[in-house]
Amino acid sequence: MEKYKIEVCYSPALFPFYENREAIVVVTDILRASSAIVTAFMNGVERVIPVGTLEQAKAYKDRGYMVAAERDGIVRDFADFGNSPYNFTPERVHGSQIVYSTTNGTNAIQLASSGSQVLIGAYLNISALADHIRKEGKDLLILCAGWKNKFNLEDTLFAGALAEMVLEDEHFHTICDSTLGAMDLYETARDDMMGYLEKVAQRHRLKKNNLDDVIGYCHQFDQTSLLPVLEENYLVPLRNVK
Amino acid sequence: MEKYKIEVCYSPALFPFYENREAIVVVTDILRASSAIVTAFMNGVERVIPVGTLEQAKAYKDRGYMVAAERDGIVRDFADFGNSPYNFTPERVHGSQIVYSTTNGTNAIQLASSGSQVLIGAYLNISALADHIRKEGKDLLILCAGWKNKFNLEDTLFAGALAEMVLEDEHFHTICDSTLGAMDLYETARDDMMGYLEKVAQRHRLKKNNLDDVIGYCHQFDQTSLLPVLEENYLVPLRNVK
Repeated sequence: MEKYKIEVCYSPALFPFYENREAIVVVTDILRASSAIVTAFMNGVERVIPVGTLEQAKAYKDRGYMVAAERDGIVRDFADFGNSPYNFTPERVHGSQIVYSTTNGTNAIQLASSGSQVLIGAYLNISALADHIRKEGKDLLILCAGWKNKFNLEDTLFAGALAEMVLEDEHFHTICDSTLGAMDLYETARDDMMGYLEKVAQRHRLKKNNLDDVIGYCHQFDQTSLLPVLEENYLVPLRNVK
Repeated sequence: MEKYKIEVCYSPALFPFYENREAIVVVTDILRASSAIVTAFMNGVERVIPVGTLEQAKAYKDRGYMVAAERDGIVRDFADFGNSPYNFTPERVHGSQIVYSTTNGTNAIQLASSGSQVLIGAYLNISALADHIRKEGKDLLILCAGWKNKFNLEDTLFAGALAEMVLEDEHFHTICDSTLGAMDLYETARDDMMGYLEKVAQRHRLKKNNLDDVIGYCHQFDQTSLLPVLEENYLVPLRNVK
């Protein structure tokens, strides 16, 4: 039986070595971009337009768009709000379009666009994501946004959790060391995820800016079955998800 | 107390994001280049000249040098021998100079040369390496050669083992997610290293070419206190190691 392969790419800078045009690419930036994007769709946003640079984000703002933009966890002056999932309230986002630019996540989304389908992954939608991937029957590449092209633990743990779920289907396999490593790290962390996350660098960055209140929220499983998918240059909810 | 920091870089392609000119850089390619280089010095080689390309290696061969050169585990036609530590016998290497080119390891050594000191690390010399780093009192950057710029487990486990040893000295600390991840993976693997290595991709590559007989050898601790160090463009044994 020909099996679909799973790979994990730990940094956008490594993407050229993992690129697979046949694969579904799941982009994750658990703290906080991918969790925020999934939250925006849970709260009824119509479209999220990820942009890589602040200049692009500002140009959209000048044209009247609502803009969420941060760098290093700090909201930019010209933006309506920043990167916390708590900003994407129904009152703000329902029925609207949002332009979104973050330190790591939005560049990763643009990079991933060579895949056969690009989805945004978070714990909030992880089971629906795994179900969809198993049903589609394609290779899976999980792209961790990382931190300024460095490896980070929180995205890696998510990649391990998702890989484990998809591998429950015998049509999938992995011979990828980074997938195996991610799964082992997830197994180490899973019984006390909040305790484990005490040590990750991004937690310290968020805490320094009093932004660490979202860590628990971003590690809640299965709050939605919505799957944000990239169409052309914007994200919309994938249709036909059960 | 100002502490020296430890970082681990999982791929030569990520080196620009971790580069630290103040740091001692330890380059590792456990299966098999760094283990082979340490073995060569154990067996009395005078100098190892790492070269990145096969063309450079061949040019040295044409000038009469002894050349070890392989790609993807296979010895190249023009070379005297390949990458197995078993090739570097005292009969062959004692008192001589060897030009060396491998798929991943030798490029990583050249990349690392911006560090304050570049050492070759393997389990074979791990305790001597940790002692030296603790005595020097400088930042430590462990550069994993990986596999064609992808993450690999066997180099990561070594990085975790070395980081743990150095961190026993309270003058060192780490806030680097890849170091923390490497240490956790090493803790997962250490009690049954050979069992754990069953799954790594490089073991399967070596097995396919009947080259996996060296895996046990390459995971033996402390067979020597010799530390190969980069001077200009060649490796020699570091002096003044106890």
